[in-house]
Amino acid sequence: MKPLENIIVLDLTRILSGPFCTMILADFGANVIKIELPDLGDESRLLGPYVNNESAYFMSLNRGKRSMTLNLKTEEGRALLKALIKKADVLIENYRPGTMDKWGLGYEEARNLNPKLIYASISGFGHSGPYMKLPAYDIVVQGMSGIMSITGQQDGPPTRVGTSIGDMVPGLFRNVGIMMALYHRTFSGEGQRLDVAMFDSLVAILENAIARYQVQKEVPKPIGNRHPAITPFDSFSTKDGYIIVAAGNPKLFEQLCELLGMPELIKDERFSEYANRHQHEKELKPLLEKGFSKFSQAEALAMLGNAGIPCAPINTIDRVMADPQIEAREMLVDIEHPVAGLLKLAGIPIKMSLTPGAVERPAPTLGQDTDQILKEFLGLTQDQIDDLRHRKVL
Amino acid sequence: MKPLENIIVLDLTRILSGPFCTMILADFGANVIKIELPDLGDESRLLGPYVNNESAYFMSLNRGKRSMTLNLKTEEGRALLKALIKKADVLIENYRPGTMDKWGLGYEEARNLNPKLIYASISGFGHSGPYMKLPAYDIVVQGMSGIMSITGQQDGPPTRVGTSIGDMVPGLFRNVGIMMALYHRTFSGEGQRLDVAMFDSLVAILENAIARYQVQKEVPKPIGNRHPAITPFDSFSTKDGYIIVAAGNPKLFEQLCELLGMPELIKDERFSEYANRHQHEKELKPLLEKGFSKFSQAEALAMLGNAGIPCAPINTIDRVMADPQIEAREMLVDIEHPVAGLLKLAGIPIKMSLTPGAVERPAPTLGQDTDQILKEFLGLTQDQIDDLRHRKVL
Repeated sequence: MKPLENIIVLDLTRILSGPFCTMILADFGANVIKIELPDLGDESRLLGPYVNNESAYFMSLNRGKRSMTLNLKTEEGRALLKALIKKADVLIENYRPGTMDKWGLGYEEARNLNPKLIYASISGFGHSGPYMKLPAYDIVVQGMSGIMSITGQQDGPPTRVGTSIGDMVPGLFRNVGIMMALYHRTFSGEGQRLDVAMFDSLVAILENAIARYQVQKEVPKPIGNRHPAITPFDSFSTKDGYIIVAAGNPKLFEQLCELLGMPELIKDERFSEYANRHQHEKELKPLLEKGFSKFSQAEALAMLGNAGIPCAPINTIDRVMADPQIEAREMLVDIEHPVAGLLKLAGIPIKMSLTPGAVERPAPTLGQDTDQILKEFLGLTQDQIDDLRHRKVL
Repeated sequence: MKPLENIIVLDLTRILSGPFCTMILADFGANVIKIELPDLGDESRLLGPYVNNESAYFMSLNRGKRSMTLNLKTEEGRALLKALIKKADVLIENYRPGTMDKWGLGYEEARNLNPKLIYASISGFGHSGPYMKLPAYDIVVQGMSGIMSITGQQDGPPTRVGTSIGDMVPGLFRNVGIMMALYHRTFSGEGQRLDVAMFDSLVAILENAIARYQVQKEVPKPIGNRHPAITPFDSFSTKDGYIIVAAGNPKLFEQLCELLGMPELIKDERFSEYANRHQHEKELKPLLEKGFSKFSQAEALAMLGNAGIPCAPINTIDRVMADPQIEAREMLVDIEHPVAGLLKLAGIPIKMSLTPGAVERPAPTLGQDTDQILKEFLGLTQDQIDDLRHRKVL
């Protein structure tokens, strides 16, 4: 049994943040109905890479959902959505603030139709404040939140995180909020509104940067991969890839120097003590990298691991996908798509003993379930559905 | 009313990932009891920066919780924890896999004491697989998951994300799991076990990198801040800071060149067409940055904003903290700590209309609530408590 099997989700979201959030709900059994505009659907269906003309980007974010088309720009389309709202537990949308209201589909209207509904909005800056109506991309909120200003090489430019955390982190916060609202509803019987912003969500994960700035009065900057207080605790290049070494205490440092064939570093007055070493980090790093240049990543890791020095590879994506731990944890799952064939997707990181999630069906083609959903939820006949389609409502 | 007011959480976590997770539960009303080893407590109490000898790092992750000391290395300490387990809804721990079992406090034992308990573990690699027992730091899982291999400047080294997403993202996944387990329990009456790994969680947010590698057979690499398919859509330096400009279509590009006083770029055959521009991105960027070098960040943003060209600042932390949207959204909250004084912390990004969260009390000093909790939950007398403390059980 999955924990969300009794939950019906109307998913009006597109691209990344909303679909990532509803994918997790679908993995755990929610009946997710993806509502897409006719003809094009979710814009991410156009994003590459493609397999047999199907977007692998879309496929990796929309597994386990059903798709129906609905033209919300028509009065009849909106009326059908209102009829579905009466049957739903959760509605999720990521239109620009104001759009749903303009369509007569805002929270007040939805609540009048269904007071138990949980109505969750995601947007760049939230449904209040001076930036409310501004558009946002992942890079915009990564930049504005301060995350880019503390990511990057020492003395280098601010750097975008290579995965879209500006979309995915708010997707996770929203899931927490949806689940808290569902939990509360089991006691109170009441639905409510959620408003999660991409900008707010990244500020919420700035971690100690906010405290550091207040206490030290220094604006935090990128410091590369090294630890702010311990040396050597950083990444180092080897013959064929990078590794991470965390040799914080004197004994580990001595062992490291011996293994690299550089015992002279132990006596070097720049590196002989804990504080010295950290102070001369910029001089020490190239020396250690010269030592590591004689080894491959695998050789260096084996040597350090055997000596008990904490270390790890910096894996490229191909190596991550071949990692035995990833296999043991089922963190890659095979999905057979009717058009695209076999594709490996990231698995489910929330491992539950009693109600585990499962990846059971591929992402839907555009509108593949429209007829089924309209019959199942609204009792429409095939003739009525054909007529709606003919008039471009579906 | 807050949604988790009826929930008692025994929090055995330390440092970052677990405390971040339970802080969110506390923000929404959960009765979080932080159980710490006597004398030192959560190791993050030792992490700087400090205010009046209190760790600002610790304070920013432990608001809204109560602290009690309990020596789990003693038989009596473990017996007291077992007595508390009988009264709790959720137990959260981040000890190395095997440690809780060794202490007779593993899931099977806890379930025997309280079948409704939700027992949530967080660890570097999870409670199965070949790496199960390996220690992990944020940088270790950032490296092993592939995130670092796709973050960084073009042709530059792999780069650590400047905030500890290796801790915070699994904290969020675990919160989703805890809430799903609580939701399920309202129907079934049954507790269960959760097992969330830092490594799994970062693999789950690799986004399109996994699909891209399978389809294109090329190992994804860092590409700086630019967009993989659109130019100019990147960060640019100005006189006094970086900005983001997303001038994807021809009209926006022409406007941009005019505003920068460089109309010659529009006719330049390297940049005259959409595909050309992207192909010659490396040549175009320094030219545009030369144009931006005449303007401050604020001037450039005002100029582009007035022309309708999508743009945004790359904010440093001081600017984020002064941002009017952050104020309007209450994304910084003032907390008065009895020892440290006033500290601003990140607010709550999950905005709920009916059951909003709130930040109501500062992080606890070590063991400040021990007596109160033992009296309230287990009915111990002050004499019994004093005796336990005398014998180093508390």
